[in-house]
Amino acid sequence: MKAIVNVYLKEGVLDPQGKAVHHALGALGFEDVENVRVGKQIVLDIKADSMKAAEKEVEKMCETLLANTVIEDYSIEIVQ
Amino acid sequence: MKAIVNVYLKEGVLDPQGKAVHHALGALGFEDVENVRVGKQIVLDIKADSMKAAEKEVEKMCETLLANTVIEDYSIEIVQ
Repeated sequence: MKAIVNVYLKEGVLDPQGKAVHHALGALGFEDVENVRVGKQIVLDIKADSMKAAEKEVEKMCETLLANTVIEDYSIEIVQ
Repeated sequence: MKAIVNVYLKEGVLDPQGKAVHHALGALGFEDVENVRVGKQIVLDIKADSMKAAEKEVEKMCETLLANTVIEDYSIEIVQ
């Protein structure tokens, strides 16, 4: 089973990497960009009996390791 | 308009960050994980006349800045 986890900074948390990308895009002539946010995408291959069990397990992983829940949010998508 | 760009290492390219996460998950007792790949997710707010125009513009951004196409692939999703 495949789990796709997106980890992104919470609204209101400053994103210096996004700011840097935004600035670089502007310097390259892409002037229609209004905002950039950079996050992580983590793709896990896991063994699980059901999609529900997989989601529960991956949620635990997010809480303990994959995301810093003080400043980051995450979303989980399970694919067969 | 919102563009969601996922940038990930090509198949066969070594992913040390993924390996480190895999190892750390194992050390935390998550033993059902078979493989981990870590990529980037870049979310852009852009002005564009149409979704097609936005996609074309973002594709150019990927080729010039957002992805290193020697070792990385990318996918683009445009959301209204």
